[in-house]
Amino acid sequence: MMSKTCIQNVRLYTGKQRIEDAAILTDGARFLYAGAAKNCPPHEGARVIDGKHGIAMPGFYNAHTHAAMSLLRGVGSDLALMDWLGQMGPYEAKFDGDAVYWGTQLAMMEMIRRGVVAFADMYFHMDRVAQAANESGMRAVLCRGCSDEQGVNSLVQLHQDWNGRGDGRIRIQMGLHAEYTSTPNLVRYAVDNAQRFDTGFHTHISETAREHADCITRHGVTPARYFYDLGALNEGTIAAHCVHLTDEDIELMRISGASAAHNPASNMKLASGFAPVQRMLDQGINVCLGTDGAASNNMYDMFAEMRLAALIAKGHSGDPTALNGKDAIHMATRAGAKAMGFQDAGLIQSGMLADLILLDGEAENLLPGHDPIADIVFAAQGLNVRLTMVNGRILYQDGAFTTIDEQQVRTKFMEHAKLLSII
Amino acid sequence: MMSKTCIQNVRLYTGKQRIEDAAILTDGARFLYAGAAKNCPPHEGARVIDGKHGIAMPGFYNAHTHAAMSLLRGVGSDLALMDWLGQMGPYEAKFDGDAVYWGTQLAMMEMIRRGVVAFADMYFHMDRVAQAANESGMRAVLCRGCSDEQGVNSLVQLHQDWNGRGDGRIRIQMGLHAEYTSTPNLVRYAVDNAQRFDTGFHTHISETAREHADCITRHGVTPARYFYDLGALNEGTIAAHCVHLTDEDIELMRISGASAAHNPASNMKLASGFAPVQRMLDQGINVCLGTDGAASNNMYDMFAEMRLAALIAKGHSGDPTALNGKDAIHMATRAGAKAMGFQDAGLIQSGMLADLILLDGEAENLLPGHDPIADIVFAAQGLNVRLTMVNGRILYQDGAFTTIDEQQVRTKFMEHAKLLSII
Repeated sequence: MMSKTCIQNVRLYTGKQRIEDAAILTDGARFLYAGAAKNCPPHEGARVIDGKHGIAMPGFYNAHTHAAMSLLRGVGSDLALMDWLGQMGPYEAKFDGDAVYWGTQLAMMEMIRRGVVAFADMYFHMDRVAQAANESGMRAVLCRGCSDEQGVNSLVQLHQDWNGRGDGRIRIQMGLHAEYTSTPNLVRYAVDNAQRFDTGFHTHISETAREHADCITRHGVTPARYFYDLGALNEGTIAAHCVHLTDEDIELMRISGASAAHNPASNMKLASGFAPVQRMLDQGINVCLGTDGAASNNMYDMFAEMRLAALIAKGHSGDPTALNGKDAIHMATRAGAKAMGFQDAGLIQSGMLADLILLDGEAENLLPGHDPIADIVFAAQGLNVRLTMVNGRILYQDGAFTTIDEQQVRTKFMEHAKLLSII
Repeated sequence: MMSKTCIQNVRLYTGKQRIEDAAILTDGARFLYAGAAKNCPPHEGARVIDGKHGIAMPGFYNAHTHAAMSLLRGVGSDLALMDWLGQMGPYEAKFDGDAVYWGTQLAMMEMIRRGVVAFADMYFHMDRVAQAANESGMRAVLCRGCSDEQGVNSLVQLHQDWNGRGDGRIRIQMGLHAEYTSTPNLVRYAVDNAQRFDTGFHTHISETAREHADCITRHGVTPARYFYDLGALNEGTIAAHCVHLTDEDIELMRISGASAAHNPASNMKLASGFAPVQRMLDQGINVCLGTDGAASNNMYDMFAEMRLAALIAKGHSGDPTALNGKDAIHMATRAGAKAMGFQDAGLIQSGMLADLILLDGEAENLLPGHDPIADIVFAAQGLNVRLTMVNGRILYQDGAFTTIDEQQVRTKFMEHAKLLSII
């Protein structure tokens, strides 16, 4: 089992407050202490790590992604969503379970090295994603982007096989791809199963103007209203993208308690539009952050995603105070943990699950360190991460992974990528 | 003197074309060969570097920055430009020449590690910036943001002392801060000196809507027209920001041959607006890219800047084909070299100045490598850089600097940052 770990000599941002000379003590999967170094309880026998005056902060919760799309990184540049989806299909049809397994492994390597502790994944061959995630030590909330009842049934099976494994790190959700690949009956079927197994629900909502408009043509209501009326929006729901929400849609999100997963890089790259982030936050909606897949981003780096979210929130609104630093960090960490159903994660405080990252205190881009909040949001980079801990276990430290065989992952990943015959 | 260097086993993007199995040969300050490995000329005695199948590409030309503002990184978050400028002033008043020297050193460390080979700097104590840049081996084009004739005279002196030094790496320009801190007579005085010494000219133009509108109130014309009418726009001019250019302004930029330095992170962070990048490119304007200073960005990373430029060009226009990959790379490399007066730099080809960078071929975020152009723009990160070469000289390789004493720079930089009493 995991013993105690004490991380000393850090500048701590707990997710709520800054503590300049701090220490953090974990016991098993949880934080035992996080606060002023001088008050740290005795910790004989604990593994001691010198934080070297770097910033310690909550890890990132990537609340909407398609990890194995790492295999398609760089494919379909300069295209709009629907054209881009058309390019992905033929390649994805070639993916077997092994391809998805190694594609997910590479994406996790990229995420862990850059401080991501958890990801909410929607793809296929999800048993292999569950296997990969469990082996990696990350938290993962998994579903398929189903478009038929058979898909939903496979998620019920996946739930039986995997939900709660890895000390609760692996969770299985119901999921549907989107309104435009569903019927009302299919949504009801997925929702029934989500309620029966208490799984939560994950889908794309109003990613593009066309999707939004077509739904109104088809059903007379917006995608958010469509899902709301069918019972699919509630506190366990992740609504990905939410770019074209109306004021009424935002109100439905608020009433239902659903989380909105903002994906700014993907929305910019596919020219889908600017999600109304500040308006959603002002209404108290739990807005979290996702990288989407590597063919529309093209990286799994939540530092880059958080910085982009903050920059475009200000730039698009014309208000430099929009999405301030603390809100941006909250979105990328605590809000994601909540959206993914880890209510007791995303903050570094006694009793919470011990997920954290440590940044390099010597990195020139983090000097002089006048304002750690601003440094985290605007100056820090994924490759400044020195240590990634999930559930009290160190998954990465100073260039080395503890659960991933880097060279094997690269080799296997490239074998599968070459089978696509794109290169 | 610098001997020959041969970089082998690279995937080359020359700035114009891709060559999958390439080799690059430099002789002194210039490229002797760049092309298919099998045609590389004999190179006995050359230093041989194994590129390990990584991407080699032109280095970045940071065409508008205030390097020593590294000392103020993180200060003044969530503010609009004019309020933000108000916060900077009292701190900047405390900077002596040593502060600017060490602030510039830290910024150069950050830039070189992330593949920046040249920077166009506008700040003060520019003799110390020139000293720092010359020592570092980078290219630098330096001016002050003058607001009086005395400042212009100091640039004339700086020109005498520094222009052309470091084998032509250091260039001195005339510079004025902006229309709103100038008079027509001052602009004429700066332009006269720019012409007399053939220096080129650097200023801020239409960064904010307020600046643009106030100029019309004051002078009856836009900032671009103001500078054009006073002879300040020509092929040697860098017009920084250009956010609020009208169609007529763009036409004046086109006629004059001036370069526009786009600063997307700063423009988003200060909510200054979206520069009309695609419209300027469509008119054939030389649009280059800058990081601006670290208090409004907050990093000196041109990979991040280029990616942001491409993402928001698509997102803001609603056109996913806007600012395609090759155009984004051109903006960050060759266009910057031209804007800074290095006509024979910014491309990896025989006869050009030997500035280049090499990316880590093993970095998971650059795998599988289906499309090196998309990988460079959307997936690559500054810390993927393995090697930075300027003028045929290696300034950085595999974590080690050849011209910068990292530990000394950090120590001295922190001493000066602490004098500001912000922390």
